[in-house]
Amino acid sequence: MQTIGHLIGGSIVTTGERHQDVYNPSTGTPSKQVLLANKATVEQAIAAAQAAYPAWRNTPPAKRARVMYRFRALLEQHADDICRLIGEEHGKIIHDAMGELQRGIENVEYACGVPELLKGEHSKNVGPAIDSWSEFQPLGVVAGITPFNFPAMVPLWMYPIAIACGNTFVLKPSERDPGSTLFIAQLLQEAGLPEGVLNVVNGDKEAVDTLLDDPRVQAVSFVGSTPIAEYIYGRASANGKRCQALGGAKNHAIIMPDADLDNAVNALTGAAFGSSGERCMALSVAVAVGDEIADALVSKMKAQMTALKVGAFSDKDNDFGPVITKAHQQKVVGYIDSAEQQGAEVVVDGRKPVVTGYEQGFFVGGTLIDRVTAEMVCYQEEIFGPVLLVVRVNSMQEAMDLINAHEYGNGTCIFTRDGEAARYFSDNILVGMVGINVPLPVPVSYHSFGGWKRSLFGDLSAYGPDGVRFYTRRKTITQRWPSAGVREGTQFSFPS
Amino acid sequence: MQTIGHLIGGSIVTTGERHQDVYNPSTGTPSKQVLLANKATVEQAIAAAQAAYPAWRNTPPAKRARVMYRFRALLEQHADDICRLIGEEHGKIIHDAMGELQRGIENVEYACGVPELLKGEHSKNVGPAIDSWSEFQPLGVVAGITPFNFPAMVPLWMYPIAIACGNTFVLKPSERDPGSTLFIAQLLQEAGLPEGVLNVVNGDKEAVDTLLDDPRVQAVSFVGSTPIAEYIYGRASANGKRCQALGGAKNHAIIMPDADLDNAVNALTGAAFGSSGERCMALSVAVAVGDEIADALVSKMKAQMTALKVGAFSDKDNDFGPVITKAHQQKVVGYIDSAEQQGAEVVVDGRKPVVTGYEQGFFVGGTLIDRVTAEMVCYQEEIFGPVLLVVRVNSMQEAMDLINAHEYGNGTCIFTRDGEAARYFSDNILVGMVGINVPLPVPVSYHSFGGWKRSLFGDLSAYGPDGVRFYTRRKTITQRWPSAGVREGTQFSFPS
Amino acid sequence: MQTIGHLIGGSIVTTGERHQDVYNPSTGTPSKQVLLANKATVEQAIAAAQAAYPAWRNTPPAKRARVMYRFRALLEQHADDICRLIGEEHGKIIHDAMGELQRGIENVEYACGVPELLKGEHSKNVGPAIDSWSEFQPLGVVAGITPFNFPAMVPLWMYPIAIACGNTFVLKPSERDPGSTLFIAQLLQEAGLPEGVLNVVNGDKEAVDTLLDDPRVQAVSFVGSTPIAEYIYGRASANGKRCQALGGAKNHAIIMPDADLDNAVNALTGAAFGSSGERCMALSVAVAVGDEIADALVSKMKAQMTALKVGAFSDKDNDFGPVITKAHQQKVVGYIDSAEQQGAEVVVDGRKPVVTGYEQGFFVGGTLIDRVTAEMVCYQEEIFGPVLLVVRVNSMQEAMDLINAHEYGNGTCIFTRDGEAARYFSDNILVGMVGINVPLPVPVSYHSFGGWKRSLFGDLSAYGPDGVRFYTRRKTITQRWPSAGVREGTQFSFPS
Amino acid sequence: MQTIGHLIGGSIVTTGERHQDVYNPSTGTPSKQVLLANKATVEQAIAAAQAAYPAWRNTPPAKRARVMYRFRALLEQHADDICRLIGEEHGKIIHDAMGELQRGIENVEYACGVPELLKGEHSKNVGPAIDSWSEFQPLGVVAGITPFNFPAMVPLWMYPIAIACGNTFVLKPSERDPGSTLFIAQLLQEAGLPEGVLNVVNGDKEAVDTLLDDPRVQAVSFVGSTPIAEYIYGRASANGKRCQALGGAKNHAIIMPDADLDNAVNALTGAAFGSSGERCMALSVAVAVGDEIADALVSKMKAQMTALKVGAFSDKDNDFGPVITKAHQQKVVGYIDSAEQQGAEVVVDGRKPVVTGYEQGFFVGGTLIDRVTAEMVCYQEEIFGPVLLVVRVNSMQEAMDLINAHEYGNGTCIFTRDGEAARYFSDNILVGMVGINVPLPVPVSYHSFGGWKRSLFGDLSAYGPDGVRFYTRRKTITQRWPSAGVREGTQFSFPS
Repeated sequence: MQTIGHLIGGSIVTTGERHQDVYNPSTGTPSKQVLLANKATVEQAIAAAQAAYPAWRNTPPAKRARVMYRFRALLEQHADDICRLIGEEHGKIIHDAMGELQRGIENVEYACGVPELLKGEHSKNVGPAIDSWSEFQPLGVVAGITPFNFPAMVPLWMYPIAIACGNTFVLKPSERDPGSTLFIAQLLQEAGLPEGVLNVVNGDKEAVDTLLDDPRVQAVSFVGSTPIAEYIYGRASANGKRCQALGGAKNHAIIMPDADLDNAVNALTGAAFGSSGERCMALSVAVAVGDEIADALVSKMKAQMTALKVGAFSDKDNDFGPVITKAHQQKVVGYIDSAEQQGAEVVVDGRKPVVTGYEQGFFVGGTLIDRVTAEMVCYQEEIFGPVLLVVRVNSMQEAMDLINAHEYGNGTCIFTRDGEAARYFSDNILVGMVGINVPLPVPVSYHSFGGWKRSLFGDLSAYGPDGVRFYTRRKTITQRWPSAGVREGTQFSFPS
Repeated sequence: MQTIGHLIGGSIVTTGERHQDVYNPSTGTPSKQVLLANKATVEQAIAAAQAAYPAWRNTPPAKRARVMYRFRALLEQHADDICRLIGEEHGKIIHDAMGELQRGIENVEYACGVPELLKGEHSKNVGPAIDSWSEFQPLGVVAGITPFNFPAMVPLWMYPIAIACGNTFVLKPSERDPGSTLFIAQLLQEAGLPEGVLNVVNGDKEAVDTLLDDPRVQAVSFVGSTPIAEYIYGRASANGKRCQALGGAKNHAIIMPDADLDNAVNALTGAAFGSSGERCMALSVAVAVGDEIADALVSKMKAQMTALKVGAFSDKDNDFGPVITKAHQQKVVGYIDSAEQQGAEVVVDGRKPVVTGYEQGFFVGGTLIDRVTAEMVCYQEEIFGPVLLVVRVNSMQEAMDLINAHEYGNGTCIFTRDGEAARYFSDNILVGMVGINVPLPVPVSYHSFGGWKRSLFGDLSAYGPDGVRFYTRRKTITQRWPSAGVREGTQFSFPS
Repeated sequence: MQTIGHLIGGSIVTTGERHQDVYNPSTGTPSKQVLLANKATVEQAIAAAQAAYPAWRNTPPAKRARVMYRFRALLEQHADDICRLIGEEHGKIIHDAMGELQRGIENVEYACGVPELLKGEHSKNVGPAIDSWSEFQPLGVVAGITPFNFPAMVPLWMYPIAIACGNTFVLKPSERDPGSTLFIAQLLQEAGLPEGVLNVVNGDKEAVDTLLDDPRVQAVSFVGSTPIAEYIYGRASANGKRCQALGGAKNHAIIMPDADLDNAVNALTGAAFGSSGERCMALSVAVAVGDEIADALVSKMKAQMTALKVGAFSDKDNDFGPVITKAHQQKVVGYIDSAEQQGAEVVVDGRKPVVTGYEQGFFVGGTLIDRVTAEMVCYQEEIFGPVLLVVRVNSMQEAMDLINAHEYGNGTCIFTRDGEAARYFSDNILVGMVGINVPLPVPVSYHSFGGWKRSLFGDLSAYGPDGVRFYTRRKTITQRWPSAGVREGTQFSFPS
Repeated sequence: MQTIGHLIGGSIVTTGERHQDVYNPSTGTPSKQVLLANKATVEQAIAAAQAAYPAWRNTPPAKRARVMYRFRALLEQHADDICRLIGEEHGKIIHDAMGELQRGIENVEYACGVPELLKGEHSKNVGPAIDSWSEFQPLGVVAGITPFNFPAMVPLWMYPIAIACGNTFVLKPSERDPGSTLFIAQLLQEAGLPEGVLNVVNGDKEAVDTLLDDPRVQAVSFVGSTPIAEYIYGRASANGKRCQALGGAKNHAIIMPDADLDNAVNALTGAAFGSSGERCMALSVAVAVGDEIADALVSKMKAQMTALKVGAFSDKDNDFGPVITKAHQQKVVGYIDSAEQQGAEVVVDGRKPVVTGYEQGFFVGGTLIDRVTAEMVCYQEEIFGPVLLVVRVNSMQEAMDLINAHEYGNGTCIFTRDGEAARYFSDNILVGMVGINVPLPVPVSYHSFGGWKRSLFGDLSAYGPDGVRFYTRRKTITQRWPSAGVREGTQFSFPS
């Protein structure tokens, strides 16, 4: 069985340490193994990054960017291989993996623009003949800890821009589906990145804690669940590190009575069930304003969902694949059970999907639950499965109050044709990423990704302009030249 | 005796609670009292800020700015009163207080530009007919905790820009010299600020902890010593708040062999002894490169220091005044003692200054200590008194290594005429604020103030562009209008 | 009779040269005289500006801004005097003059932020140890030529930001109503502006041509009619000057079938008749989409217009005042005649308004003309009077085609509740300033003002960010320090 | 003999019209022919661009950028072919052509960042619930007219960013060396650019005038000599087009007494003789401050120049090649003659270079002329050949006065180690591009290129941020939604 190792100082390391099985969630069986780095291995990776830092920091940004241009081309060239690896280990269908990769590539494109992005502010004459300017200097060694649900994209949110800014990087990806992540990192190496600038260590809590505690690591970016995000943020901050930790979500869509309902139903179907709902931006709650639109919505959703195909990653006719593990499958089913027990109405039930030929796969079918209320467990917690809840309210304000009261504030969306409703919503909703008739309002790579409330710990969002700011620190220089000796002296030395 | 109270919801509160003496450091006697707020009072201030928030948030930025224009005019108008209050409670000479106030006013000026500063980024066609833009929305109630050494300026680093951005504010100034701070806050009220938008509570640890723990407070800005900064940052972060905490410093100036020495000596004198060295940007270490320049420097400094006048705040002929407390006076003297004991040479000794008529004042005279080494206590710790250390090294690299190895990274400076030396220094020094022949490289108000290493905890610097970013959170909206019904429908309704 | 002179080198000049009467349009009689500068006088003003330039250019931007803060305060303080002067000479009602002045003050506020606005871009390491940055340096002496319709506001679009950027200025205001312009200029003097930095010359074509031809004048800003704008732009450009010349307009509002009609009618009334329609942003054409909304619009407008009060400037109950001259009054009436002759329907006829006590005033009453078509003279030309045309079309596309085919492209507006219609309109309309339910979409002072097509000649818009760019020129500096002599030399000079 | 045609609407056109010989300047013989487009052909190209505009304008910027990523890769892939074509027709040595191409590629890289560069400014609440933002929309069809000396680079200054901004383009390159330009345009086609977005027409004045007069062309960028630039600017402006026209130069380097002379001599040699001095940024005048440094400079230059190799483009050991035509060769020699006649000292004489095997080539050897004065013809005019003049002055101020008095203000440089001298120079010199110890201070692609005085006509510089601004026009939208009907209505429609 293949063993997935680490990338340290430009070389693949495959020996020693503990192992863990990597499953193919479509078949339900382990297909590879991954090394779990102990503290010493992680420290080796940090040391490699530290050693590579001085030269990389002094490489002109335009030259650093050129590595990213080549990386971008290699990612396009190897897209099929990457998507197959994602599918095998994560389970998402090939077209969905392609979408993920494309979003990742866009972050590499953003990093290509780093000479523009690193421009500081220059002020002439802050005082008489005194100038002042800011520089955004790299931090040094920085670390990223990334989740299983986007093994290609989320790491690409982090290290391209961090590295383009002049930092060196240690990445600890999810140990559940590390294959594509490592493969992509090797492509960056192939693109001409000097050894040690990007290092990948696979591992578990031991690896994470090493990164959080080692004084050479200057900053940590994390994406995962809220409890872990909170742990990471607390520990990194206590150690004096800069940290941004992105956590969970419960993304609501408000369906207004004037919504273009066909459009909304299409949008919801993709946004709720795509990637089995294992996305922090998945739309998991539809809030219908008025019973009339609620009835129409549920009826249209039900009809549309009959066509949904769940199955193995390799068949591109499938709409979505399995969830990541057996345990997670059971957890999702448990949420549906609890909804039923707490009085909600399971309109479409995905608890026992039939996927012929893949009976052991970790599948959950698309599920629609109507008449959910704010007190239910399925509403309060993040399910991270292909389950769409419908909540019925009587006014837009009631819908907004519901959203504003929820613990999470990652993404949200409104379906309406009305300019005033859209503006009021986007202004007053306590959520960081807002869609107007856009179900997955993931900001494009040249904007930044960040939730509010308990969806993000830290001041700065991920990637885009905030990514640049996170991976650099401001230095402000104030300059005065006191003496005109050389300039005026020459007048006396050489009289005409 | 006058009692200095709180400003809560637009009214001065002077009743209840514990008291503490406020000294006149020039005479060494208490002249006023200050209330120390208990938890309930602080919560009242937070509640007032919370209540004022919705209306203030929705006030257009240009209108919020207009309050700042009037505030600016009132500050200029009442400058003498403010400086007298600073002098009485802090001890700094009137011209120094005027300089402090001027810097504070410049931060108000920056806040006047808030309509420009709040501009978000707008992207047309992030996808077909999809637009996306960012807004920088206020956080809600934010808090500031400020030190004794700049009772006017440091609060003005914080609340003008925070308030201009649409937040409401609770300020806890230093209980040692709260008079000018409160007076200034009342001027902002007079300028037309709605009640409750700015609140001032005087107090001690109880007040601080209440601000750090109350869930209504969204962010905390702090300026003070490093141990307290670390405490504040840890506790605020653990409570999920945004925090920036500025701590101590040990600011070095490198004197290169080609420096314009007269200029350097003038600059060092002001930067080391001004405000009795009680500035986080005070230059406390001169690193001379080569014995030749070191000897010349010490000799010129010694000569220049004979003219230094220490005395009461009210005599504008004085160069600097007392330190803040008796205890601090003794602490500074203790550092000089220890330097002597550890083998340094006290060239000019300020331990027993004679200030006729003010024998009980907390005075320390200007002190110059040569042949200091990195192992000495006086070098390792922040003295915060009118004491300049001279360290002798053999190369510029040695000087830089010394600076880069120190715990703090607030400010630094080089004296040279050489472009290459200046550029190498500013590029490679691990300090956030760098001067080239500028002894106090405090960034102007339209840049940002922030040290590196243990001089600042947090991602974002104080005031200027980083101040705006700190007091706002990014919201990204992605918008698509799905239906052309209204636009196209009319063609059919009204055929020609 | 009072003679209005020039401001040259800090002094009022009232002698010599030709004169012209200044009328009070409300009474129809001349009340003052204005000097008309000959070439020599204009050259004197240019010389004064040239002499003041070097010192002003080198004054730090923050200090230049401080003059603007004081200017701002003086403008607020003297608002009543200014508005009375505007009323006497231009005829606009006091509340309208106050609105004009307020907009002007906002441009002064923008100029207060000049330290922020002048920030250049700084790039570290454009090559190995090579840095590059841009500076936006002032141009030198620049000139402004301004129209009668906003004697306070339009000059304030220009010289505050030009001067704050470090230029010196020669202003030639309209000779029809020069009083408030000169008074305001004197306030800037009073605010502490050094002599010669701002100069005002009154005059006619001789003065204009002198400004256009004098090689010391680096740039010219003009606002007026399109034929003159074209002349100014051609002559200034041929003389190698930077020029921006703003001309005429024909601003259309589209009324969609879903518009909030009460709101639209209110908005149109103000935007069409305010200031007697003598605004380049006046809404002069309402394009109703479908006869249903057209009928309703005309009917509601007619009703609303019965309450319109035209009269002397001094009565604040009046809605609008006279037009500027007898000749212009006749011209406006002529347009209404021609509309009638060409088959349009004069629904409300303002050709013979009764203004008791002011029978000789240059009044035209509010006029509404329905069933106007694109072939009519009243549609093709700018009327610049209180006349609103209604054009009826069958589709939104037809309405947009009409607008896009018109010679002018200054402002436009749509009334709708529909997000899609608004977005399609703003995207595809060939007009520089677009309102969505905003009848007068004049950009706020921190954005820029500029029409498209024959409404503006030049690359850059007026005031705001484009104003800063217009009044400065980019200088890009690339810097490398070749020798490390001083830095490394010291290692050898002083070995340990 | 090969005929070089046009690229119109995606196809190569090689028939009809007039022809002109294209020479190989290294051999002095014609090797190809180029078509000269008549008016009708140019209009065809404009029509193709016009037809391609609507779809291209609506293509999301990120998609437009993706064409540029592929273009960039193709340029790297075909670099050798391109450089050979440049060498054959222009004569520059292969390594110099490679440098040119690299600079061109950097402009393509800048265009890749267009999603970031097109961001507009968004302001929330410019009034109560009123928002305003700017968009930078493309202009439509724009044209570029480019010179012979950089057949690859100068076109790449223009169309990549123009096209990335959403415009379509008609390029008229120099008819002297059109081969590489056309080849590169075809690579962009191959990269996936839709047909008609970029068109290339070869031609002479007839083609130029057609572009200047056709009303469909919205803007013209030109690089060439000052008399033609002035003509282009005047005619385009008179036709209401946006225009930037870059003209000639006379770039001075000041050699200060403290300069690192070896570095300066190396820098001057490359900057004066590279590409035979046929660069608008070539350093053509060395101003030595004091006879001592002047003597040393002349002596070191003379020594260094003995090693200079002039010869055919194909031998990469050569330092520079022939000039572009026989006529130009004679003109350059004429300037050297005139210098001699006017009393200057020809220290190194390149008038009769021996290039064995290429006796008919248009060669001029590296020439050094000392003791040049401001009155000489060779000083006043642009020579555009491998000729370096030395002027001797007695003070830095005298050197600066000389530069500031010259007609041109393109580039300049100072050689010094002194920070004060460098800062004073860069602040006060009336030149747009300034080098500190950088002999060819061509701004990198993410800054902008522009001279002052008669070196550039127009407000905005070429490429970089100014390029984006030049190829877009600002639209400002102000938006208010008047009615809360949909939002509030629902409360009543669906009571609980």
